[in-house]
Amino acid sequence: MTAAHPEGRPGPTGGPWVRTVAPTLAVVGATGGVGAVLLEILSQHADIWGEIRLVASPRSHGRKLIVRGVETEVVALDEAAFDGVDVALFAVPEWVAARWAPVAAAKGAVVVDSSGAFRSEPDVPLVVPEVNAGAARLRPRGIIANPGCTTLSMIVAVGALHAAFGLRELVVSSYEAVSGAGRAGVDALRAQLAVVAGGGRELGTHPGDVRRAVGDRMGPFQAPVALNVVPWAGDREPAEGGWSSRELAIREETRRILGLPELPVSATCVRVPVVATHSVSVHARFEHEVDVERAHEVLANAPGVVLCDSPEEAEFPTPVDAVGTDPTWVGRVRRSLDDPCALELFACGDNLRKGSALNAAQIAELVAAGLTAR
Amino acid sequence: MTAAHPEGRPGPTGGPWVRTVAPTLAVVGATGGVGAVLLEILSQHADIWGEIRLVASPRSHGRKLIVRGVETEVVALDEAAFDGVDVALFAVPEWVAARWAPVAAAKGAVVVDSSGAFRSEPDVPLVVPEVNAGAARLRPRGIIANPGCTTLSMIVAVGALHAAFGLRELVVSSYEAVSGAGRAGVDALRAQLAVVAGGGRELGTHPGDVRRAVGDRMGPFQAPVALNVVPWAGDREPAEGGWSSRELAIREETRRILGLPELPVSATCVRVPVVATHSVSVHARFEHEVDVERAHEVLANAPGVVLCDSPEEAEFPTPVDAVGTDPTWVGRVRRSLDDPCALELFACGDNLRKGSALNAAQIAELVAAGLTAR
Ligand SMILES: NC(=O)c1ccc[n+]([C@@H]2O[C@H](COP(=O)([O-])OP(=O)(O)OC[C@H]3O[C@@H](n4cnc5c(N)ncnc54)[C@H](OP(=O)(O)O)[C@@H]3O)[C@@H](O)[C@H]2O)c1
Ligand SMILES: NC(=O)c1ccc[n+]([C@@H]2O[C@H](COP(=O)([O-])OP(=O)(O)OC[C@H]3O[C@@H](n4cnc5c(N)ncnc54)[C@H](OP(=O)(O)O)[C@@H]3O)[C@@H](O)[C@H]2O)c1
Repeated sequence: MTAAHPEGRPGPTGGPWVRTVAPTLAVVGATGGVGAVLLEILSQHADIWGEIRLVASPRSHGRKLIVRGVETEVVALDEAAFDGVDVALFAVPEWVAARWAPVAAAKGAVVVDSSGAFRSEPDVPLVVPEVNAGAARLRPRGIIANPGCTTLSMIVAVGALHAAFGLRELVVSSYEAVSGAGRAGVDALRAQLAVVAGGGRELGTHPGDVRRAVGDRMGPFQAPVALNVVPWAGDREPAEGGWSSRELAIREETRRILGLPELPVSATCVRVPVVATHSVSVHARFEHEVDVERAHEVLANAPGVVLCDSPEEAEFPTPVDAVGTDPTWVGRVRRSLDDPCALELFACGDNLRKGSALNAAQIAELVAAGLTAR
Repeated sequence: MTAAHPEGRPGPTGGPWVRTVAPTLAVVGATGGVGAVLLEILSQHADIWGEIRLVASPRSHGRKLIVRGVETEVVALDEAAFDGVDVALFAVPEWVAARWAPVAAAKGAVVVDSSGAFRSEPDVPLVVPEVNAGAARLRPRGIIANPGCTTLSMIVAVGALHAAFGLRELVVSSYEAVSGAGRAGVDALRAQLAVVAGGGRELGTHPGDVRRAVGDRMGPFQAPVALNVVPWAGDREPAEGGWSSRELAIREETRRILGLPELPVSATCVRVPVVATHSVSVHARFEHEVDVERAHEVLANAPGVVLCDSPEEAEFPTPVDAVGTDPTWVGRVRRSLDDPCALELFACGDNLRKGSALNAAQIAELVAAGLTAR
């Protein structure tokens, strides 16, 4: 390793003992949207790392970013970037992860990948520490996948309820923030809002007028997202049967994380004009009878969940309240009127925190704890 | 009647025969949001009415509005306003309807009420002409209720699918436009957008910043609706079990309209920053096996439905495309991957057209046809 972090825990002589207790972390994609939140989180969490190496494309080589209060130079992604690295957090486009994660793993690093490159590989565990921490130990390829942001915005709450009541079916509809489509999504919403907010009183009441106002400010979306909702998220091409890639991913990821390979899951993903924080409306059917009081208890005691459910006082989760925070916010918990075994609820989670960077950092911390325990 | 409409169909001598073939219509609440769309629709549809009398509060007495190209004076709501009226379209607040609809009915008018005042009365039929036109004939109290806008944004499509496959369960999540909360809702969204659209790049990424920017511009909503989604619609007070009045209404109305008093229906209602047109994500389970091709056929042939389902060409319904049009737009039709008897779909309908004024006008036309057929 090049330099021990000044606030790290050096060995008695400042010598090689450091490597054992304070593993080296690489953040690959440190200059991106998820990368930025990763650096923030690494600066806030208990400091268990020795060196933290920042990696990005050659374009960013030499850029300086601050992590744990220390200015750190970004290095370009190449084999040498993984020399001596124990854990590598990947937050780069899918094709970059597909190409470089195996390289890092071959050099002995445990990779935690936030892209979709490995999420459906059977020999790559998909981990949510509050739900299936144990799965992180079995990683034959040296790679652990971080689930997608929509799944992560509800899975901690759903996992806690599953543990209590035994999940049997899930029907979910999402309200997804534009930042789920990266910085380009946020830029598109801001550009669109700038033109429609100035519009006359009638804008939004005639077909086509918002489309005309938005013009070529469509960004990564397939329809205007300002003053609109767009029932599509994920790859542009639909999968067989008309499903979006994101809808299929929610089904597959939920099954894998909960260890319920046959769980019926129906998802509909919809983009809404919210900057950050995904919301999900959930209908969950269980094996056992549920009641709201017991469900409240389960959720209130679940790590990583905040219960926010007093509609008589206008207390329910909304994106502008949940954004920038770590937990999954859950409210609107009701027992279905026609099925004593089913619950409805509404959950909000920041797609850039628990929905990506935070969960990745938690996995990395799990792995590090295993490394130092060896 | 006071004056025959110039383009009406006067009898051979311009005499009393007119009354029989061209009934008199009263529009009560002509000056409101729904009323304005009613006047527009009455001017566009085949002209079957003799006199059209415009009624509102005493505040509006003497105001002049245009209907069927003719300037018409608004009269104040009192008993005399119903003299000689055959059909009365009510588009006024609930308490006004509760007070005056029975008065109009007692004077011999058939009332079509768009408020919630009578929707759950067992002796008041709840009518959607494409689905249960026959129900309009049995009206012991002389009152017919127009269903709520969220139910109306999907019920024509769901009704067509029920006729083909036999509905067994419905799980819906809504994306409701602010105009569902009246003009005050639209004003609140515009006022909020004016402040958040000007905000810096970071607005919407920190908890509380949108709340601060929105300040006291909350309007009829219980949380900011710009850059946000709000999982609450209907009365402020939750009903037992934490349900919103709107969620319970969707269940009850759907059961009544489809004639399925035991149908399991779970609804979650969410307000979104859209001016007009409600959207609904629907999970529908049927008695019989479904396939997407056959469902497409059913929907494409259903009166009042437009199928819009080619995601590979970015064709799916969105509010800004559906707004201002009459039909229910349906897309994203998929067969559930885990249940051959279930379908997912996404529907959009303009809450001010099919969601209120259009459906009311259609009911009035049905009634008028019955009157002239007598
Ligand atoms: N946004 C979300 O809500 C979210 C949630 C979950 C998962 N994810 C996933 O996380 C990953 C990163 O997303 P993001 O939103 O942070 O994207 P982003 O803002 O576009 O950042 C991309 C990062 O990847 C780096 N990069 C790009 N091409 C590279 C290359 N050829 N070699 C090395 N580094 C390269 C960029 O470095 P330069 O600055 O040098 O170009 C940058 O650091 C994606 O796979 C995404 O799907 C995103
Ligand atoms: N907005 C929707 O999407 C929607 C959908 C379905 C059903 N509805 C229902 O339709 C009804 C009308 O809604 P809206 O949005 O059109 O409301 P609105 O814009 O506020 O209009 C209210 C109308 O009622 C009249 N009015 C108020 N108080 C009155 C009184 N004491 N006596 C006589 N007339 C009175 C008003 O006349 P002045 O102008 O003289 O005050 C105005 O014409 C409500 O019951 C609403 O729940 C609305």
